[in-house]
Amino acid sequence: MSTSFTMIGGEGPNSYREHSKYQGALVIAAKEKINEAISTKLDIDFTSNLVNIADFGCSSGPNTFTAVQTLIDAVENKYKKESNIEGIEFQVFFNDSSNNDFNTLFKTLPPARLYFASGVPGSFFGRVLPKNSLHVGVSSYSLHFVSKVPKEIKDRDSLVWNKDIHCSGSSKEVVKLYLGQYKIDVGSFLTARAQELVSGGLLLLLGSCRPTGVQMFETVEGMMIDFIGSSLNEIANQGLIDQQKLDTFKLPIYAPNVDELKQIIEDNKCFTIEAFEKISHAKGEYPLDPEYLTSAFKVTVGGSVASLFGQDGMEKTYELVKEKTQEMLPQIAKAKPGMQYLIVLRRN
Amino acid sequence: MSTSFTMIGGEGPNSYREHSKYQGALVIAAKEKINEAISTKLDIDFTSNLVNIADFGCSSGPNTFTAVQTLIDAVENKYKKESNIEGIEFQVFFNDSSNNDFNTLFKTLPPARLYFASGVPGSFFGRVLPKNSLHVGVSSYSLHFVSKVPKEIKDRDSLVWNKDIHCSGSSKEVVKLYLGQYKIDVGSFLTARAQELVSGGLLLLLGSCRPTGVQMFETVEGMMIDFIGSSLNEIANQGLIDQQKLDTFKLPIYAPNVDELKQIIEDNKCFTIEAFEKISHAKGEYPLDPEYLTSAFKVTVGGSVASLFGQDGMEKTYELVKEKTQEMLPQIAKAKPGMQYLIVLRRN
Repeated sequence: MSTSFTMIGGEGPNSYREHSKYQGALVIAAKEKINEAISTKLDIDFTSNLVNIADFGCSSGPNTFTAVQTLIDAVENKYKKESNIEGIEFQVFFNDSSNNDFNTLFKTLPPARLYFASGVPGSFFGRVLPKNSLHVGVSSYSLHFVSKVPKEIKDRDSLVWNKDIHCSGSSKEVVKLYLGQYKIDVGSFLTARAQELVSGGLLLLLGSCRPTGVQMFETVEGMMIDFIGSSLNEIANQGLIDQQKLDTFKLPIYAPNVDELKQIIEDNKCFTIEAFEKISHAKGEYPLDPEYLTSAFKVTVGGSVASLFGQDGMEKTYELVKEKTQEMLPQIAKAKPGMQYLIVLRRN
Repeated sequence: MSTSFTMIGGEGPNSYREHSKYQGALVIAAKEKINEAISTKLDIDFTSNLVNIADFGCSSGPNTFTAVQTLIDAVENKYKKESNIEGIEFQVFFNDSSNNDFNTLFKTLPPARLYFASGVPGSFFGRVLPKNSLHVGVSSYSLHFVSKVPKEIKDRDSLVWNKDIHCSGSSKEVVKLYLGQYKIDVGSFLTARAQELVSGGLLLLLGSCRPTGVQMFETVEGMMIDFIGSSLNEIANQGLIDQQKLDTFKLPIYAPNVDELKQIIEDNKCFTIEAFEKISHAKGEYPLDPEYLTSAFKVTVGGSVASLFGQDGMEKTYELVKEKTQEMLPQIAKAKPGMQYLIVLRRN
């Protein structure tokens, strides 16, 4: 996660843990393809009987436990079949920004796990692990962030000031700036992973992006974030939060479209794209349930809203978001679907 | 730290961070001997340009940052002098039990650090890192714990029920049981470290123990914990806390004497004792200041008291502890000094 954007921690009813089943379902839906990729594309030598695995953008569980166990099982299957190597030890590095709730992650580690667990605090837009130390990396629903929002977008007096709280797609100039930053950041992400991975190591990326031609404001995610924006404006008009603060409140999120994401990977040149697959999400698109939708976008975006406008301001905002979601359910039902992906990259 | 005994986290006025300067001073006092040990005894090969360092029982900072930086500097000096190896990368594993406050540790990592940081949750009485993956380990003020208190000691109806809340030394039978558990635990600690360390790797132990012949109740630490015990009994008599609960409240602490510690290491056979040195602590014994002494034993023992008797019970206890410390200052002044040590072990 970018350092300024952290999921709501803890194990409470409003925590990311309790409202991230949708994200968790993607790893499960992609399991077979993950097994196939590791079985056919992973090419590491086994001098030390140690396999290092990392999740970049792990948050505070439990989806990350499913993801890393999926990788461990796949690697074990491969090496037991091919070379009946015994006594492989696994070390798993859970990476997220240093204000992630690692305490909850560590307290909820699966007791029956058969790997050594480590939490790695730090922005994944730079190096967080030593060179040539990683065999398989995974990053799930983490590559829709930018490390910073271009300042013109936040400056009320700039020609490219963004009236929305995110990159909705309604302004070409805003998209251009966000995409420019996104290219830099994902490029840094890939370059750092390439230095950390051993030759023949794999990097698996899962998440959702926009089919080419679909704008963010046409998707469920875009609509929900627009409801958050309009709700914030309403309570600012009521004088409950500071309008000037709101004018600078821009989320460090950029949802790329398919071609943009592919182009960035190709331009980076550190990896060969072994697979770029659409995954049909077991849960389909978001369920059309205002309660569910409001919670899903509270545990992800709510932390940022609260950090600027306080807990009270955040709660009031999401009361309005729920009302708007209820009202706009017919439009949400016609939202254009995003694309859930599994990308398999082999380090050159 | 044993899983049931964790320092008070956070960065507040009552946190372990704010009251552990005494412990921090030992590493500084031992720096020259540490440098010498690493320079002359560390014997690792450098195929991967990566040096892994671990602190076992790191708590939530900042002493651990001083300790690991001391090791890094010493290793760099050695390898720059001997073989001008360039581009060494350091990965530091901060280990403590899974209920340690890693969030505070991660948020307070030195910004200018030149190492990759990882938090490793788990009891150091077992394996927490992969085999042959560690070059230098350190453990400071962490080897005075037992993984569990022998149940007879907690059982009010047992002949060996301990009337004190810790192993004060006043009962031979209680000492025997505590020491038996301590031997098992430190043996497990050493065996696990030996499997994690590469051949020629070093394990540095710092802390305080009792000179042979000195009983715990004759030391400052023993006196202070006895004040905590008697204060708890007072508020139990006032009906403010449950007496039965108090009867079972025994701290998982055992302060070994010098010969016991040396014997345990020798019996374990995984290591060669390269040095077993008395370190004259820059701060000498504890300052004779009731405020200081009460806080020092609140941030270490207070968490356990609060977890059983609540925050309110803990605060009341320490009000009495401060009064008793004030009253008993003349006796404290005559307490027998402990021995601060640096032990350098090379893996066989």
